[in-house]
Amino acid sequence: MRFGLFGGGKIGRMNPLGDSHGYKDFIEYIKDADRLGYESLFVVEHHFTGVGQLSSSLNLLTYLAAVTKRIRLGTAVVVLPWHNPALLAEQVATLDVLSGGRVDFGIGRGYRKAEFDQFCIPIAEAQERFDECLAFLLKAWTTEGRFTHESKHWKYNNIVVEPEPTQRPHPPIWMAGGSPESITRVANSNFNLLLDQVGSMSLTFERLRTYLDAQEKQGRARDASRVGVARALHVIRTEGERKKALERRAENLKNIGELGRRPGSTEALVDDGALIGTPAEIIDKLQRFAAGGVEYVLLTNAVVTRESLLEFSEEIMPHVSSPASGKPLRAAAA
Amino acid sequence: MRFGLFGGGKIGRMNPLGDSHGYKDFIEYIKDADRLGYESLFVVEHHFTGVGQLSSSLNLLTYLAAVTKRIRLGTAVVVLPWHNPALLAEQVATLDVLSGGRVDFGIGRGYRKAEFDQFCIPIAEAQERFDECLAFLLKAWTTEGRFTHESKHWKYNNIVVEPEPTQRPHPPIWMAGGSPESITRVANSNFNLLLDQVGSMSLTFERLRTYLDAQEKQGRARDASRVGVARALHVIRTEGERKKALERRAENLKNIGELGRRPGSTEALVDDGALIGTPAEIIDKLQRFAAGGVEYVLLTNAVVTRESLLEFSEEIMPHVSSPASGKPLRAAAA
Repeated sequence: MRFGLFGGGKIGRMNPLGDSHGYKDFIEYIKDADRLGYESLFVVEHHFTGVGQLSSSLNLLTYLAAVTKRIRLGTAVVVLPWHNPALLAEQVATLDVLSGGRVDFGIGRGYRKAEFDQFCIPIAEAQERFDECLAFLLKAWTTEGRFTHESKHWKYNNIVVEPEPTQRPHPPIWMAGGSPESITRVANSNFNLLLDQVGSMSLTFERLRTYLDAQEKQGRARDASRVGVARALHVIRTEGERKKALERRAENLKNIGELGRRPGSTEALVDDGALIGTPAEIIDKLQRFAAGGVEYVLLTNAVVTRESLLEFSEEIMPHVSSPASGKPLRAAAA
Repeated sequence: MRFGLFGGGKIGRMNPLGDSHGYKDFIEYIKDADRLGYESLFVVEHHFTGVGQLSSSLNLLTYLAAVTKRIRLGTAVVVLPWHNPALLAEQVATLDVLSGGRVDFGIGRGYRKAEFDQFCIPIAEAQERFDECLAFLLKAWTTEGRFTHESKHWKYNNIVVEPEPTQRPHPPIWMAGGSPESITRVANSNFNLLLDQVGSMSLTFERLRTYLDAQEKQGRARDASRVGVARALHVIRTEGERKKALERRAENLKNIGELGRRPGSTEALVDDGALIGTPAEIIDKLQRFAAGGVEYVLLTNAVVTRESLLEFSEEIMPHVSSPASGKPLRAAAA
């Protein structure tokens, strides 16, 4: 089983001394993760929240490219409707070049009503703007030489996107999916899949199967390493810590609900998904995920500290294997 | 006299092995410059040229922020009409935070007809789009708390730009100027000034005086360190090298003319501005620039290699002082 990190929330406020200290703390944390054998980092991108959230994810990842060696640099997600498609294609390609081909490009259409209102873009246009930008990106990265592009919101005449990404024809594209329809769409596009940290264990297995079935139907391998399962992590040592961790989990779910749930959604939460417990309990839970076919877990950093990164890599990582894939266990520390 | 670098042209093609090697070479070159005491780097941003030019200048500078310690990280220039103003404000602020306040933010309205055609933006809108974006940026960086912005092309509702730049209220803004009117506008806005590499020595002095006079009229100090004078550099050792360097200079001027001149411009070139010669000749020319009040020279990297960076820092930098400013000479090497 491979382990990545999912984060960047409130990066500027991670440190009470303010934005620049918060970024510094986060960079040190990722340098640790790189050394300790974590597979990837996926960072959020949000705008105008006023709570210190990361806004320029591709810039932060570019900095991290320079101070890390192996960790893959992902977005989760770049909201395509905010971006000029050509500038975005150039930025992602530049990051891919500068990082030696370590970009995992997670994209989304956006879901926060407030954010659309703030950008003065109707949320009703989210899907068409997403489709338009994605079509452009794929064209820009796969066309040899110059091309012309005309769609509803963006027009370009006789252009060539430079530089070329290091990963050809382009970095892996990741998309979140929840419903069977959305997961099947991701699989049919041959993109990788991000599953949220809220879904229960059985729902996660069901979603994973939906993806693998759809890939198989397209004649492609059933490759569970292409599905990243986000999970909250909190390693505890005492029952007092367990109580605090569960309270924090409840608060996080509430925040995710408030900020993130689509208006009108009333999805009930069956919360057996979080990795909260002693090392032994977490190993046990991860073995259950592994038995259900999960090969790639993305730990959310809402509750991950530098200390728990180290603990997890020493006490848990070496004891979890993925019987489903038969792949060798990644070394816990370099 | 302080010395910066001006570059990024054809970065992807600096190395015949292609884009990624070109970027690597450029990064090593800037790491050298940082160690050798160069004050700054100003990088271009161009799109769709097909000759390997740097397109994502803020991303490259973010990478450089991580691998350098002192060198200032400048743009020359970000063409405002291409960018979403809010995303740009966030990107520049993020770079400023990640670099510890080393951003020099050079901006322009764009001048290449082909580039406007490629972006499908009428070049006739260049000025209004520039003004609009700049007004937004200044508002975003100087407003406490949330604000709403409405202009012709961009609207935002109840937003706050995060993170805050490290340099308060914002990084220094640099603009190119040529005519007395444009230079006076830059000074009146209290921005710093970039002078091109083409202008003759006497024209450069005249432009510098125009800027300082205008600053003085606004009640501000006559500070020539706020004027960066771009100059081509080629240190030669033999008459054969001189001939080649002059040929290369002529070719560069021709390229600048073809790519860069506004349609219909017929400005004659009096070319005594380039720093082409033996170390002794270049020291002599720089002393003449210093005597005319120039304190800050930006060497264009069209003809600068890692070897000539070292030569220049060892054989030339220590021998040039700026009598006009009376400032201590910057150490040539750390």
